[in-house]
Amino acid sequence: MIHYPNGVKKTVQTKVKQNLKKLSINAYKNRGMDFEKEINITNQFYLETNRAVITKRPTPINVVKVDYQRGAKITQAYFEKQSTTDYNGIYRGKYIDFEAKSTQSNTSLAIANITVHQRLHLQRVLDHGGIAFLLISFTKKDEVYVLHAKDFLQFMVKETRQSLPYAWIKSKGKRIQIAFQPRIDYLAAIDQWFF
Amino acid sequence: MIHYPNGVKKTVQTKVKQNLKKLSINAYKNRGMDFEKEINITNQFYLETNRAVITKRPTPINVVKVDYQRGAKITQAYFEKQSTTDYNGIYRGKYIDFEAKSTQSNTSLAIANITVHQRLHLQRVLDHGGIAFLLISFTKKDEVYVLHAKDFLQFMVKETRQSLPYAWIKSKGKRIQIAFQPRIDYLAAIDQWFF
Repeated sequence: MIHYPNGVKKTVQTKVKQNLKKLSINAYKNRGMDFEKEINITNQFYLETNRAVITKRPTPINVVKVDYQRGAKITQAYFEKQSTTDYNGIYRGKYIDFEAKSTQSNTSLAIANITVHQRLHLQRVLDHGGIAFLLISFTKKDEVYVLHAKDFLQFMVKETRQSLPYAWIKSKGKRIQIAFQPRIDYLAAIDQWFF
Repeated sequence: MIHYPNGVKKTVQTKVKQNLKKLSINAYKNRGMDFEKEINITNQFYLETNRAVITKRPTPINVVKVDYQRGAKITQAYFEKQSTTDYNGIYRGKYIDFEAKSTQSNTSLAIANITVHQRLHLQRVLDHGGIAFLLISFTKKDEVYVLHAKDFLQFMVKETRQSLPYAWIKSKGKRIQIAFQPRIDYLAAIDQWFF
């Protein structure tokens, strides 16, 4: 047991409570980020078990001003859109590439989330004999799907809709059971499609 | 011919001269950057001619503060070291991965330039059946070499030296002729090693 000076214990407890509150607010706000974290944990597991080498591309940032007097502190910069997808790497000797998207909607995923550059990139990967797909999380349902890039791109050609319907993703994609380790075992679905 | 008001022409010419001087100073300062640009131009050419899809991973930046009042302006951030290599992609169906380094030295490339994480990453890529190499520019000599990751990693095991000697790189690596298009045709060297 830690003996706090008078008053300190209460302050610490209050701070802990405040931090927990903050955390839960952030958890809600950053659900997209949580999906990213879960994918990163999964990729780390794949790496450590020597199953695949898959990494997240850093978010591109346009650096405008750097203060070299203060240890190369960036003082002005802006986020840029990724012109390719977020993840790529090597799996069973093949090139693997995917984009991860999460949505709060229960009925669809907005297509605007996936830029024209990213669609073109996925098409190119398929053309060159690589593995390409989308990893889609319906966060409120707690359901994650792998969607083959081929199906996604065919949908884009045929349909004029601005979103991928949940029912369509469910029928075309493969659902991934969320587990402890690996968290989101998307490679299991890939095995059935690409090998 | 443009008619400048009195005095303006001279000012413009002086400014042009000043800018040219600045540019040539920057050209000297940014030789490392120039090498990066030449690789990017090469990769763009490979992409447009449908030969390969190879991209540069953005530099990872640790974002500390963002001002959302000013259109998500990043006001405090720091450069981070890449934990993998700088470039990766797909070529002839295979995963391809490399690190590019330029040096002002005529005699060697300092090994400290290539982090332990990057060495481990190159080893992993080879283990998984991918293409892995270094692209090395001796800027003062205007010579560029492709060095097989296998040779580089074997050197690291056997040698205790803190740098890769120029003569050794020359004997083990493949020299790339700098041309107009593609600028640095490193895939030609790769063909001989990996296919």
